[in-house]
Amino acid sequence: MPYRPTDLVDYARALLDACGLDADKSRSVADILVQGDLMGHTTHGLALLPGYLTELESGAMRKHGEPAVLADHPAAVTWDGQRLPGPWLVLQAMELATQRARAQGTCTVVIRRSHHIACLAAYLKRATDQGLLMLLTCSDPNTASVAPFGGLDAVFTPNPIAAGIPTDGVPVLMDVSTSATTNGLTNRLHKEGRRLPAAWVMDGHGVASDDPAVLFKEPKGTILPLGGMDSGHKGYGLSLLVEALTGGLAGHGRADAKEGWGATVFLQIIDPRAFAGLDAFTRQTGHVTDACRASRAAEPGKPVRTPGEKGVALADQQTRQGVTLYPSILPALAPWAAKLGVSEPTAIS
Amino acid sequence: MPYRPTDLVDYARALLDACGLDADKSRSVADILVQGDLMGHTTHGLALLPGYLTELESGAMRKHGEPAVLADHPAAVTWDGQRLPGPWLVLQAMELATQRARAQGTCTVVIRRSHHIACLAAYLKRATDQGLLMLLTCSDPNTASVAPFGGLDAVFTPNPIAAGIPTDGVPVLMDVSTSATTNGLTNRLHKEGRRLPAAWVMDGHGVASDDPAVLFKEPKGTILPLGGMDSGHKGYGLSLLVEALTGGLAGHGRADAKEGWGATVFLQIIDPRAFAGLDAFTRQTGHVTDACRASRAAEPGKPVRTPGEKGVALADQQTRQGVTLYPSILPALAPWAAKLGVSEPTAIS
Repeated sequence: MPYRPTDLVDYARALLDACGLDADKSRSVADILVQGDLMGHTTHGLALLPGYLTELESGAMRKHGEPAVLADHPAAVTWDGQRLPGPWLVLQAMELATQRARAQGTCTVVIRRSHHIACLAAYLKRATDQGLLMLLTCSDPNTASVAPFGGLDAVFTPNPIAAGIPTDGVPVLMDVSTSATTNGLTNRLHKEGRRLPAAWVMDGHGVASDDPAVLFKEPKGTILPLGGMDSGHKGYGLSLLVEALTGGLAGHGRADAKEGWGATVFLQIIDPRAFAGLDAFTRQTGHVTDACRASRAAEPGKPVRTPGEKGVALADQQTRQGVTLYPSILPALAPWAAKLGVSEPTAIS
Repeated sequence: MPYRPTDLVDYARALLDACGLDADKSRSVADILVQGDLMGHTTHGLALLPGYLTELESGAMRKHGEPAVLADHPAAVTWDGQRLPGPWLVLQAMELATQRARAQGTCTVVIRRSHHIACLAAYLKRATDQGLLMLLTCSDPNTASVAPFGGLDAVFTPNPIAAGIPTDGVPVLMDVSTSATTNGLTNRLHKEGRRLPAAWVMDGHGVASDDPAVLFKEPKGTILPLGGMDSGHKGYGLSLLVEALTGGLAGHGRADAKEGWGATVFLQIIDPRAFAGLDAFTRQTGHVTDACRASRAAEPGKPVRTPGEKGVALADQQTRQGVTLYPSILPALAPWAAKLGVSEPTAIS
């Protein structure tokens, strides 16, 4: 049963407003969550909203205020996010970094003590639509599920790296965890009693497994770094890089007391106009993505796609024809709607 | 048979000088190549020198001159490397980016038409020793050996991502290809008739393999993206990011006529002092790397290491006790020494 995206945004805004969040912040959070679902990132769209509402209610996500500026240099800004909603903070940071990048060539904003920032891919097209290259990465110092290569003990979150890359056609919207899989997917498959597509986790004895249940029983297993048992040193190295860019530059993270579900954010806007020019940039990125799509398929009938191609097409289609939500999403929001006196959205007939 | 590192640097300098390269450029190239061997990167140290000498002799590597400045903004500089030696260009770019990052917080230098830049890890400690975070990545538009995920046709080079991260102890020196393995390793193992440690390549029919020979016979195989058959979309995404940062920002690459062995380079210096401060930075990165090393080992007797830890220790030890070169390296240089009238180095007795 599809829903109009605008109806879902209005629904999410009404729920967030009813919890007392500032109106502009509700708007940003609702937009980014629904954008996640539009692109098919079903674990990182409205599926997150019940959690966010719980955090607003408990005060763990802050409802009012602004980030505190900890440092401000022409191409480098550091904020304390004061545990304000992540999607609102990231959109504010993108605006600032975009202005600065026009003058300096690039601008980086780092945010400590943001709340969770939802689906990284959901932000990228706003940058590529302006002909800007955007890098976005985050970690959550509150928790750890990913082990260093060769180790049994979790040190990292899945520490995603996302990038929006303009081309002369469909942009590349790349969003990959530096771990073999994510908390979102392992949690969902575990609840549903299902297996992972490959051996992306390790049990508490160091044996690779495709069973997410190993993460939930003693001795506790871990998510493998990207590259798994034979190349996990690469994912491990990238996880450390993300920690440095986030917790390191923000000066706040795993060395500090835990404050609950949140994110430390690194965001960089790079303006190709300050380098060889936007046309020269998209000529190269267009050429390379065309070459990828032109590659013969390794498996007949499964053509090579570029990252984000499917998400952009799905978002276009779902914007026109309505969004089909993952089945568990609206039922999880129904009790909140009842409690807060918000009307549930109506499916398109 | 170990050699004094200074003797190897002098030997490499003498060979490069004898080919007519400017003295300051010979010095930079020799330093970086020997640094690669010191750290144990035996495919990317002096093993590259015969190739470099051939390129100098043919004129494909330029002997004199400076890079041309194509664009210059406070935090973003674009050079045409004019096919000058890569290690010299990268060291020049590091110096400029370091000065600029002190004022702007970060500075990025992008170089089109550099010659090959050797071992990425060899540059990083020069940045971390100054308390700077350094990102370095490159691609070579002249060639392709890595296929996009799901494809049979090579589009990318192994497109490495390297980062130097200061900590309160041993720095993290991270250098990983975004492909499952490298040209250097597959070439060497193929010549030696050996197999790869895992299925890091794909034959020309789309079947994963550990035999590097599939890259050298028809129909031609390819190197898999990092993540291999089940998670290769992640390495593929990172490969595209590297193409955007290098060929895209430099405005020169795969869309242009091939010019021979070379590199397009992206280098970024980030000064933690412009964010939350260097002490705050190393407090976090030190904490995280300590946590990694403290993790129980998955395999008894194989403790968790941080990236670069082994390389830094090996470089220290080899600086004191002499460098043991990979067996094929000096024999490959001997004909050059004879031809150019340069004395070969003497092993430490």
